[in-house]
Amino acid sequence: MARSADETRRKILDAAADEFAQYGIAGARVDRITTTAGVNNALLYRYFGGKLELFDVVYSHHVTEIVEAVDLNPEDLPGYVGRLYDYYEAHPHVVRLAAWHQLERPDHAPPEAVRDAQAKKAEKIARAQKEGRIPADIPAEELRDLMVLLSLGNSPMAPSLGGGVSVPRRATVVAAARAVLEAGPGSTG
Amino acid sequence: MARSADETRRKILDAAADEFAQYGIAGARVDRITTTAGVNNALLYRYFGGKLELFDVVYSHHVTEIVEAVDLNPEDLPGYVGRLYDYYEAHPHVVRLAAWHQLERPDHAPPEAVRDAQAKKAEKIARAQKEGRIPADIPAEELRDLMVLLSLGNSPMAPSLGGGVSVPRRATVVAAARAVLEAGPGSTG
Repeated sequence: MARSADETRRKILDAAADEFAQYGIAGARVDRITTTAGVNNALLYRYFGGKLELFDVVYSHHVTEIVEAVDLNPEDLPGYVGRLYDYYEAHPHVVRLAAWHQLERPDHAPPEAVRDAQAKKAEKIARAQKEGRIPADIPAEELRDLMVLLSLGNSPMAPSLGGGVSVPRRATVVAAARAVLEAGPGSTG
Repeated sequence: MARSADETRRKILDAAADEFAQYGIAGARVDRITTTAGVNNALLYRYFGGKLELFDVVYSHHVTEIVEAVDLNPEDLPGYVGRLYDYYEAHPHVVRLAAWHQLERPDHAPPEAVRDAQAKKAEKIARAQKEGRIPADIPAEELRDLMVLLSLGNSPMAPSLGGGVSVPRRATVVAAARAVLEAGPGSTG
C-alpha cells in the first residue's frame, strides 16, 4: 500500500515536471497533470496541497539535482562551465523550470539544499583565491555566478533578447571562461 | 476622435506592458488590464483581437526599442555589453517580456525589425573581423550573442539557476567581454 502511494506520487511528479516545464505555474493545468498520471484531481490535492505547492516540490527536486550533479573544481572553472552547459543541454526541463520559478516566484527563496551547495562552491573558490591558486580580482560568489551565466549560452533562456538565432557554442563559452581567468588581476577595474 | 482612439490604444498598451511583464501571457488577466486602462473589455478585443495578439504587440514594441536604442560599435564590444547591461537594468520590464516570450512563445519568430537590426549588428562585426580590426576566431553572430549573454548578468533571468544571490557586476561583465576579445585566435579550440 505504501509502495503504491509512492508510485502514485512519482507518477504525479513526473507528469507535473512535464506540464510545468512547458506551461509554467499560471499556464499549467491540474487536469492535464492528473490525466497524464492516471489519477484523480482529489488525490493530487491530498498529496501536494495545490498547484503552487506541487510546482515548488518539482522545482526543488530538479534544481537540487543540478547543483549536486555538477561539481565545481576551483582550479578548473572553464571545465565547470562546460559540464554545466552539457547538463543544461541534456536537461532542458530544468532550465525552463528554473526560468518559470524566477519569473513567477521572484521572492521565493531557492531550496536550502541549493543554497548550501552554492555556498560551498563559493567557499571552494574563495579558498583557492586565498591560496593564490586562481586570480582573486573577482569576488568568489560573483565569479561563481559569472561562470553560471556563461554556461547558459545554449539554454532556452539565452540569448532571449534581440532575437539571436545562433547560440554561443560550448567551446566558445568554455574559452570565454578561460579568458576571464587568464586576464588576471586589474582587468575588472 | 482619432486622437482619442490613439490615447485609448496607448492606455491599453501601457497597462498591458505592466500586466504581461509581471504575470506573463497565461497569468495575465484582461480584466486587470482594462481596469487599469479605464476601458471596457470589448474595446480591448476590438483594438487588438485578444490577449495573445496584445502580448505580441507589446513584446514587439519593447524589444524593437532595445535593439534600436543600444547601438553596436564592433571595435568596442565591451562598451556594447556595458550599455546593454545599463539598458536592461533601467528597463526590467523588457527583460521579463522577452523571457515570457521565450518561454511561452518558443516557436514565434521575433519581429522583423528585430531580426533586421540583429543581422546588421552581425554584419558590422563580420566586416570588422574581415578587415582585421577585431579577432575573427568566433563567428560574428555567435560573438554578438555571447556579448548579449554577458550583458544579462544583472537581469532578472540570470543567474536563474542554482540560487545565486550575488550577480555579476557591470565592471565584471565588461571586463569579461574584454578578456574574450583579447584572448585572441586559437582560444576557442
